[in-house]
Amino acid sequence: MSKIFAFSIRKDEEPYLKEWAAAHPNVTVDYTDQLLTPATAKLAQGADGVVVYQQLDYTSETLQALADQGVTKMSLRNVGVDNIDMAKAKELGFSITNVPVYSPNAIAEHAAIQAARILRQTKRLDAKMARGDLHWAPTIGREVRDQTVGVIGTGHIGRVFMQIMEGFGAKVIAYDVFKNPELAAQGYYVDSLDDLYKQADVVSLHVPAMKSNYHMINSQALAKMKDDAVLVNVSRGPLVDTDAVIQALDNGKLFGFVMDTYEDEVGVFNADWSAKAFPDARLKNLIDRPNVLVTPHTAFYTTHAVRNMVVKAFDNNLALVEGRPAETPVKIE
Amino acid sequence: MSKIFAFSIRKDEEPYLKEWAAAHPNVTVDYTDQLLTPATAKLAQGADGVVVYQQLDYTSETLQALADQGVTKMSLRNVGVDNIDMAKAKELGFSITNVPVYSPNAIAEHAAIQAARILRQTKRLDAKMARGDLHWAPTIGREVRDQTVGVIGTGHIGRVFMQIMEGFGAKVIAYDVFKNPELAAQGYYVDSLDDLYKQADVVSLHVPAMKSNYHMINSQALAKMKDDAVLVNVSRGPLVDTDAVIQALDNGKLFGFVMDTYEDEVGVFNADWSAKAFPDARLKNLIDRPNVLVTPHTAFYTTHAVRNMVVKAFDNNLALVEGRPAETPVKIE
Repeated sequence: MSKIFAFSIRKDEEPYLKEWAAAHPNVTVDYTDQLLTPATAKLAQGADGVVVYQQLDYTSETLQALADQGVTKMSLRNVGVDNIDMAKAKELGFSITNVPVYSPNAIAEHAAIQAARILRQTKRLDAKMARGDLHWAPTIGREVRDQTVGVIGTGHIGRVFMQIMEGFGAKVIAYDVFKNPELAAQGYYVDSLDDLYKQADVVSLHVPAMKSNYHMINSQALAKMKDDAVLVNVSRGPLVDTDAVIQALDNGKLFGFVMDTYEDEVGVFNADWSAKAFPDARLKNLIDRPNVLVTPHTAFYTTHAVRNMVVKAFDNNLALVEGRPAETPVKIE
Repeated sequence: MSKIFAFSIRKDEEPYLKEWAAAHPNVTVDYTDQLLTPATAKLAQGADGVVVYQQLDYTSETLQALADQGVTKMSLRNVGVDNIDMAKAKELGFSITNVPVYSPNAIAEHAAIQAARILRQTKRLDAKMARGDLHWAPTIGREVRDQTVGVIGTGHIGRVFMQIMEGFGAKVIAYDVFKNPELAAQGYYVDSLDDLYKQADVVSLHVPAMKSNYHMINSQALAKMKDDAVLVNVSRGPLVDTDAVIQALDNGKLFGFVMDTYEDEVGVFNADWSAKAFPDARLKNLIDRPNVLVTPHTAFYTTHAVRNMVVKAFDNNLALVEGRPAETPVKIE
């Protein structure tokens, strides 16, 4: 009988862990809500593998403490592996898996809903309702169907976003360095980013962050956009020059801004500042604007995604434990 | 040269009025932001017809004052005609038109966006951001694509709503007393409301209010729904027993509620209570809940709809003035 131990299981993950355990009666599953540290590693005693997810580093000491329990099969419930001491993992003979894709729809839906909210001015309307002003005018909406939506990046997430916007009846155009042949045949691609900026009422980013696209949305790019454009970034903070966006909001060039990722989010997002001094005045400025919707890198966070993160990590770990090839192994080098 | 005079033109209507006037250089267009009353009727002096829109009654005195200016051709920019003294209008030989459909998409989009917001818990997230709590957990979203969406009423608005929800990837089922043959052939219809309540995660109303469906969503109907269902009413207030919904929110049966129309909205919506005692404690209770999105009958209010209201009313009025049949005449009897 195999045994898998899971660390830092949140309340919202428990149902899916239990679902997986029930579907695998031949595997003993145990778990804790504590993070994996050199001290807590001993909770995995007797386990054949561990399932993990944390921002906290997987240090040399942590990995050693796991190996001391005889555990070298580790399955991440998330994608990121940059907090793992890979040299040590290699030295100790670790096998590691991650979950590279949990739910493109989670992120695409968030982008679509928040973009639509900017167009319909729901933040202004909500604020009016809260203070008892029940006038509908002058808080007028722009219909999604009337917009030309420019999608930058046509991977999994960008393509789902396109389908949602077309469901609303919007006209969709796209740009990508790597063209999807099917979309190309259907005529979605414009020739250049400049063409996209010129035509799009909504510009939505769905590309990974690379050195080459750092601050791709800067004051020059913003100046090329249509007046009253809506900018959506649910991808990666460094794609957007935040100061340039604030300037474009101040001078009325942008109708609104959706921001789920922020170039300075590390150490600020996923923390509670309500009883402390808020650490980033620029971020606070954005949060407080009626035409800006900030969320703390939460677009991915759905029941569908969390279920996939848990179930896929356990599937991976069981494969490692049983000596089968895991679906998404991580290269250790 | 014909002359048309428009009453109670709002700032957001002006661009479309000017657009229409520019397209009709042979018509003199003049307007005021004042409502039509016995006193202001004289502003229409010399006009061949008037374009109007107001909640204020078109009383016997008001109609007489218009007729005294020689004006008996009146085109409403909205649909409702129940505030017109029809007996007097008949006696004075009035011709009246209205605009029965301005934008089904305006309302369908609002329903879809607000329903999606309930599923993604955006009101809770927004409140956390506003107070500086940037934790994403435990505010987890349900993806629209995972929902079965039950649409009650498959007229113009219901059908657009269905298309939007399918764009998200949701499963859509429908109920209507009058079945649309195309939708029927595609297998959308369930046999009864009970079947719809049993299957739907989101229940959205798109039917007119009639005596026969007064409080159709009552405690019995709510009890038949799935646990954690989302109820959406952007149609008519009297369809929903508000007390029963509050009970279902209190006991956790409903995951959330979207309300753009309210059975007691007359005299409360479209007014500013921020400096006065709020007139409806039950409504305030709903507005303040984190899983309820109240808007003041504003779903219709988009630039697309307003343009249609203005342009169609002027088109109608010009037809009356020129003795041609208007597209949407109102029966006077």
